[in-house]
Amino acid sequence: MKIFITGQYITKFGELWDRGLNELLIEAMDGAITSAGLEPKDIEAIFVANKAAGNFEDQHHLNAIASQHFSHYPPAVRVEAACASGSLAVVAAEQALAAGTYKTVLVVGVEKMTDVSSEMATHILSGATDVHLEAGSTFPALYALLAQQHMAEYGTTREQLSAVAVKNHLHALENPEAQFHKKFTLDQVSQSLLVADPLRILDCSPISDGAAAVVLTSHPSSGSPQILGWGQGQDSIDLANRASLTTLQATKTAAKHAFARAKLTPTDIQVAEVHDCFTIAEIFAIEDLGFVPKGSGGAATLDNRTTTSGNVMINPSGGLKACGHPVGATGVKQVAYLAKLLKQGQYQVGLTHNVGGSGATAVVHILKG
Amino acid sequence: MKIFITGQYITKFGELWDRGLNELLIEAMDGAITSAGLEPKDIEAIFVANKAAGNFEDQHHLNAIASQHFSHYPPAVRVEAACASGSLAVVAAEQALAAGTYKTVLVVGVEKMTDVSSEMATHILSGATDVHLEAGSTFPALYALLAQQHMAEYGTTREQLSAVAVKNHLHALENPEAQFHKKFTLDQVSQSLLVADPLRILDCSPISDGAAAVVLTSHPSSGSPQILGWGQGQDSIDLANRASLTTLQATKTAAKHAFARAKLTPTDIQVAEVHDCFTIAEIFAIEDLGFVPKGSGGAATLDNRTTTSGNVMINPSGGLKACGHPVGATGVKQVAYLAKLLKQGQYQVGLTHNVGGSGATAVVHILKG
Repeated sequence: MKIFITGQYITKFGELWDRGLNELLIEAMDGAITSAGLEPKDIEAIFVANKAAGNFEDQHHLNAIASQHFSHYPPAVRVEAACASGSLAVVAAEQALAAGTYKTVLVVGVEKMTDVSSEMATHILSGATDVHLEAGSTFPALYALLAQQHMAEYGTTREQLSAVAVKNHLHALENPEAQFHKKFTLDQVSQSLLVADPLRILDCSPISDGAAAVVLTSHPSSGSPQILGWGQGQDSIDLANRASLTTLQATKTAAKHAFARAKLTPTDIQVAEVHDCFTIAEIFAIEDLGFVPKGSGGAATLDNRTTTSGNVMINPSGGLKACGHPVGATGVKQVAYLAKLLKQGQYQVGLTHNVGGSGATAVVHILKG
Repeated sequence: MKIFITGQYITKFGELWDRGLNELLIEAMDGAITSAGLEPKDIEAIFVANKAAGNFEDQHHLNAIASQHFSHYPPAVRVEAACASGSLAVVAAEQALAAGTYKTVLVVGVEKMTDVSSEMATHILSGATDVHLEAGSTFPALYALLAQQHMAEYGTTREQLSAVAVKNHLHALENPEAQFHKKFTLDQVSQSLLVADPLRILDCSPISDGAAAVVLTSHPSSGSPQILGWGQGQDSIDLANRASLTTLQATKTAAKHAFARAKLTPTDIQVAEVHDCFTIAEIFAIEDLGFVPKGSGGAATLDNRTTTSGNVMINPSGGLKACGHPVGATGVKQVAYLAKLLKQGQYQVGLTHNVGGSGATAVVHILKG
């Protein structure tokens, strides 16, 4: 069965002090339906991605909040897999379409993170680790360990990490919905506030509010981007039990299944939205997805091989790093942003890569225009 | 496509001070796999139902916790819809089987609720209401409003409410895993501590720890219970915007779709596990599911027409009221318990009914032995 993305919408990402959770959710749903040229009554079911509205906003049962926006109350469900919630909501929607249960469905991801203190947000996000084995570990600390290991094993440098941030902040200048619109130099990133050695504040994606939505349909839809394949991988949630600390095995597994389903290889991909929650995470991603040889991700980035001048454009939206990272929205935003680019015609084949936690869950989608 | 339940397992429900979240999750998964006569490697994917481990236990990303119990790290996802999480995880699994993505999958529901204070548990559970429009409302308060309205409109009595509790506590005596094994009289229920008029402490389901799991397969499996149909209904999350306060429209919608898919009617159902989070909720359920005429649920219960001597056996497990209500586990436990009864051969056709919040989400499954 062919599944098409006929509509997509991304709200402004940022510290949106004047916007509430439900408001962002509704803006994204309405925007995607309008983008698809549909009426609300055409939506047969809703798949909501959200990590932690129960913690950030005391609001559980978000599927009901989404459904009641429609006078026909379509069936709705929430999907969660930490920061990979968005892409797994897309997968859940695909399964329901492939089962023939529905023909046209809505996927919406949302997170409202700025109504709690930074300390509380850090605590909530840390719930995506193993809270027993990694008690007290923040995500910057875990990714710092991965960065240290990658630097020791492959000679990845401080400057190469900074190159990821510089590139993604440059890309975000072209994305009006991005959280940040500010150029940085390599030195500015390298000398920014230390968070967890070697990661500095400008290596980290921000705390963000935002929502994104896509309309998926199994009706024939010429001219709409098509989902060619998806894959999901899992690994140990805690770093201590991983086979390697310089590869995310979950990403490799997800990519293997997605490429097999799409009958494509990494060299076919022209553009990718990858999960750069930290600069080091983008280096892992482009290596583990097969775009560059293992260990060469930092050099490839510093050599401008992952931007307009390279073979594969990485994170044209600005990525999590500069576009922002409202965690439940991110996986949906990646698919929505890529669908928009494919509709515009500059690229024909693209990929999205969404990671949960420090790499226990990873999901890859491959789309063609 | 035919979908069979080849294995099921329910842990002890109760205040399990010596059992942790992960431990309960693993006991249920292992138990269901053993019950199905399978090996762990046979599980192709896992669907985890949980309402609020991120609040009760600070643990998000529960799909990864489930997956890492298996050396082959099967893909896993968490599904949430407040107290209807369990049944919607079963639906998500059915969709993936019907899509042909997997042939054999595991559904596991779990909740560990007793590591926080009762006040905190009440607060967390209230997150399944509309936190803006119903700010401060606890679930007993919302169901008390529904009970008042039902009493005013149909003459439902205090004694009839008590009859639900007396019956379900009697049924629980036959269920070793039930949280409570204690007989009550009508007077004991009617004179128990007032919580929210007219609901008393013995009208309410308890705070519980527990887990349940089922193995679903699309492989032919003669002798295993089969899922004949399912349905999902939604309604406004807040009571103020409902068309009626004496009917759960979501239950009626879910039942309509489930009966249509199963090509059956309410008179075909011999046994049902329904969502009796409060005694009044069982009265609503048996009316809205079509087992008894609207308004007569209380009388039917007091007349012993919903137990062994009646046409339809309601809540043989003891229901949420006496078996216990670990919220994320409940919907899976209903399916698991019914599957066990159907395997034993006493009944041939049964139904499960799972509700989220005060009725914004409802899910019905129909099974045959």
